[in-house]
Amino acid sequence: MGEFELIERYFKRPTQKAVLGVGDDCALLAPTPGMQLAISSDMLVEGRHFLSTVDPARLGHKALAVNLSDLAACGATPIAFTLALSLPRVDEAWLAGFSSGLLQLADAHGCELVGGDTTQGPLNICITVFGEVPPGDALLRHNAQVGDDIYISGTVGDARLALEVFRGTQSLDAAGLEFARLRMERPTPRVALGTALRGVANAAIDVSDGLLGDLGHILKRSGVGAQIDTAWLQSSNTQRHSAGLEADAGISPWLAALSWNKRLDYALAGGDDYELCFTAPVEQREMVHAAAWESDTPVTRIGRITAQQGLVVLDPHGQPIARRFASFDHFA
Amino acid sequence: MGEFELIERYFKRPTQKAVLGVGDDCALLAPTPGMQLAISSDMLVEGRHFLSTVDPARLGHKALAVNLSDLAACGATPIAFTLALSLPRVDEAWLAGFSSGLLQLADAHGCELVGGDTTQGPLNICITVFGEVPPGDALLRHNAQVGDDIYISGTVGDARLALEVFRGTQSLDAAGLEFARLRMERPTPRVALGTALRGVANAAIDVSDGLLGDLGHILKRSGVGAQIDTAWLQSSNTQRHSAGLEADAGISPWLAALSWNKRLDYALAGGDDYELCFTAPVEQREMVHAAAWESDTPVTRIGRITAQQGLVVLDPHGQPIARRFASFDHFA
Repeated sequence: MGEFELIERYFKRPTQKAVLGVGDDCALLAPTPGMQLAISSDMLVEGRHFLSTVDPARLGHKALAVNLSDLAACGATPIAFTLALSLPRVDEAWLAGFSSGLLQLADAHGCELVGGDTTQGPLNICITVFGEVPPGDALLRHNAQVGDDIYISGTVGDARLALEVFRGTQSLDAAGLEFARLRMERPTPRVALGTALRGVANAAIDVSDGLLGDLGHILKRSGVGAQIDTAWLQSSNTQRHSAGLEADAGISPWLAALSWNKRLDYALAGGDDYELCFTAPVEQREMVHAAAWESDTPVTRIGRITAQQGLVVLDPHGQPIARRFASFDHFA
Repeated sequence: MGEFELIERYFKRPTQKAVLGVGDDCALLAPTPGMQLAISSDMLVEGRHFLSTVDPARLGHKALAVNLSDLAACGATPIAFTLALSLPRVDEAWLAGFSSGLLQLADAHGCELVGGDTTQGPLNICITVFGEVPPGDALLRHNAQVGDDIYISGTVGDARLALEVFRGTQSLDAAGLEFARLRMERPTPRVALGTALRGVANAAIDVSDGLLGDLGHILKRSGVGAQIDTAWLQSSNTQRHSAGLEADAGISPWLAALSWNKRLDYALAGGDDYELCFTAPVEQREMVHAAAWESDTPVTRIGRITAQQGLVVLDPHGQPIARRFASFDHFA
């Protein structure tokens, strides 16, 4: 099968909103008048971002999910994406799986595949995604304000837990492994939460390299510091539910079962979470809960923005924890 | 040097037209009201699209040039691009060269680097480029009309000639090699010609996989056939000038010095040319010449669109040439 037949068979579909889709020199979009265009591009490399053994449908899902997560972090509504794909060989079973996982997530978000490129080479997936946001409404990194609450969506640390199981340093029951593995291989981009936070949150970022490291980008850009609490790492949502505590999420029961130090490491510096970390004024707490409810996405309040520079992690008694947390750096 | 310092040092610059550039989850553009957005994405893989020995500044130029060439083929005006880069290691000399070649071409076209991604992995460059075109003015593949003239810009076959010299099947004098090598490593995207052809040409494509193969895409989409003349392969522009013939381009003096069969192969099926092949009504000949003049780009009339399906190459006496021409396919 040649390059053009491959595209025709697995990636070309009738255009929906695009003026022109896959198959010409360019795709053509008609942007909604008055909206700004949000653009993000992510490249996934075999052995670096995923294992060669991963299910191709999950990989197709994840390749788009990590890009949609960037749109979510800006509060943008997805509209379209391009896919550039370097493949060692034409493997039809792989392509069928990959494209089905990819296009299923695309359809769920009304995000249309409008063009791209295929070539032979080491497996590499580069997606560029386009979204729309009203002028002034985009959630950006540089706008955190002193006194803002800091929140995290969903649960963090699960992808790291799955990685440690694959590495053999950690063991899990079957249900736990399936959960953690799904979190790593099939992350849920928090698109609905992102758009619901327009006009509510001051700053946002998606957590891909670890919560503290990514929050650090917000702090640096905004010229502020932060205190992060850890009481939310003491139990999972369900445990807090039965204890009558506030019912958010934060960590899964499987993470809650780990030692305290591992909980700190995985949840605060684990990476590959694709949850939203955002800040919002204290007076917006009800609106944050409304956004969480509206988007059916749990959010947990985990700290506050401070005038004092630096990122301080507090133990459940409110005392600073004196240890280092590593963030993920592709060249470190 | 880490990932973020790398981006900061080599790829981040003050934003020009973009609302938000490199460094957040998304870039933000404010599209010109009423314009359509043209998008193209190309992936370049080491060993497949370029040799590991190529000068990094030329590679940076080429990586963007092949994308700008796609915009040119649609008649779109470049506005911005994203860069996703997978690098085996951080090589500062390479990065300095690559970014300088890339950004110099970007500046020449007012095309702003607004975002992207860097990661570790086999060398892979994925650029997605954005341009604008008035609704209805985009040059597309499916609109060639029976009776249209067929044109090619600049000269074709030079990149293939350079490749054959590197392969050792062909030799060239120093001036010829430098010319052919520049054509291969530092192609000129025909952006000004593309925009000048809005409302003049009926269909266009950029020639990257070989003239006949790429013209074939126009024919297939438009449901038409074509006759291609070869008299223009008998001599180069300068030779035709001195012989008092119509002064266009078509092939370089070095290509004109090759055997007839090699001229046919390299010019008609050579690949990597990044010239525009386009069709226009006969009554638009003066406007085509005006567009060529206005954009300072030579164009050569090389054939005509026919109702009869298929692509026929005619020898200089007007007789069909009975041989096959291979087009480039990444998985063939």
